Amino acid sequence: MKPIICISGISGSGKTTLVEKLIPELISRGYRVASVKHDAHRFEIDKEGKDSWRHKQAGSRTVVLASPEKVAVIRDLDRDMGIDELVDRYVEDVDIVVAEGFKGALNPKVEVWRKAASEAPVLLKDPHLLAVATDDKEIDLPVPRIDINDVKGVADLIEEKVLRGAAMEYFGRVNLYVNGRRIPMKDFVQDFVAGAILGMASSLKGVEGPIRELSLRIEEHMPTKLQSKEE
Amino acid sequence: MKPIICISGISGSGKTTLVEKLIPELISRGYRVASVKHDAHRFEIDKEGKDSWRHKQAGSRTVVLASPEKVAVIRDLDRDMGIDELVDRYVEDVDIVVAEGFKGALNPKVEVWRKAASEAPVLLKDPHLLAVATDDKEIDLPVPRIDINDVKGVADLIEEKVLRGAAMEYFGRVNLYVNGRRIPMKDFVQDFVAGAILGMASSLKGVEGPIRELSLRIEEHMPTKLQSKEE
Repeated sequence: MKPIICISGISGSGKTTLVEKLIPELISRGYRVASVKHDAHRFEIDKEGKDSWRHKQAGSRTVVLASPEKVAVIRDLDRDMGIDELVDRYVEDVDIVVAEGFKGALNPKVEVWRKAASEAPVLLKDPHLLAVATDDKEIDLPVPRIDINDVKGVADLIEEKVLRGAAMEYFGRVNLYVNGRRIPMKDFVQDFVAGAILGMASSLKGVEGPIRELSLRIEEHMPTKLQSKEE
Repeated sequence: MKPIICISGISGSGKTTLVEKLIPELISRGYRVASVKHDAHRFEIDKEGKDSWRHKQAGSRTVVLASPEKVAVIRDLDRDMGIDELVDRYVEDVDIVVAEGFKGALNPKVEVWRKAASEAPVLLKDPHLLAVATDDKEIDLPVPRIDINDVKGVADLIEEKVLRGAAMEYFGRVNLYVNGRRIPMKDFVQDFVAGAILGMASSLKGVEGPIRELSLRIEEHMPTKLQSKEE
């Protein structure tokens, strides 16, 4: 898994404001950053009348829009995906993922709480809570308090608690999905699977130098319609 | 590889119009459809001021926006990705991909050409050209001509030339990327790799029933910054 820090808190607490300051702070420290935002409601990302919108309206399950500079993917889901699955599937080549929202996630998190927004922080009982970023200078907390404007302080905490630990993890973390479902594996099973696959891959023509990342997909390949005809 | 049909042609030929009629036609025939659009220019998919836009402006390399109903991913690229790579990375669970644009791709394609838009079709020498969809009822062509409004005719062609062939492919097509680069494999190598991995996976706790799809990612797991410190 890539290291993830959740910036959580109730609506209106100032999560996006903190996230948009935190991202450049982490980048200035040399990390490559991705971010994920959870939205409980419908969101409209595509502009009405644009070609990609027309594709989606026509019924595409997934619309991909690509230019030489960026790619956008819009995909229907039939369930709420957790942060781990979202990161596994959609995020590559970064050192840290800043997740906005995801109060219920089992990942390290910082709660953003402003006195004016609600009576008290809501995640104090969450064992994954690392700190509260707040404008209240007096409240007594079971975790460290960071001033809500102290972005460097939040970044320091992330470096110490999230990134330093991640650096200890060894090469070859394996993320496996079978039929769309994540298969958890103990460390020694991961070692075994990674060893077998990396060994196989390194013997293939076209593979040069050390393998830093490998991704692989195997799929049954028969259109639904033709499949049902043959059943 | 998933079956891909490119709807190509010069700008203004009517590609999007054909694609938005073709998608529901294919869906009505029982296929699950994804679509990909190539845009040579910059595109703006995100709305200024929205949270996801704020994340991107702050410097995130990848922004993921998720709700229970859909997920949107916006990612910076440093090069133009080909249609095969885009489909491999971003499209899942569909039977056919309709690609708009991608004139230079090595995939089966239909050229859309209107008399009023240009002098002549531009892909007549492309060995992957299956047909020309046009409003010209007289032009002599080396490939079948389909009326530009005959969406059923285009769908018939796709079923016959693209989907029927795909149905013959056997279980276990393997798409492998190492360090971000696609590793092509001969059929028997694919069989070998798929056999080994499917065998290993089916012995894991949590894997039940026949494996229809499997995806796996192994990655070196050390932040760039900490890595360079240790070098």
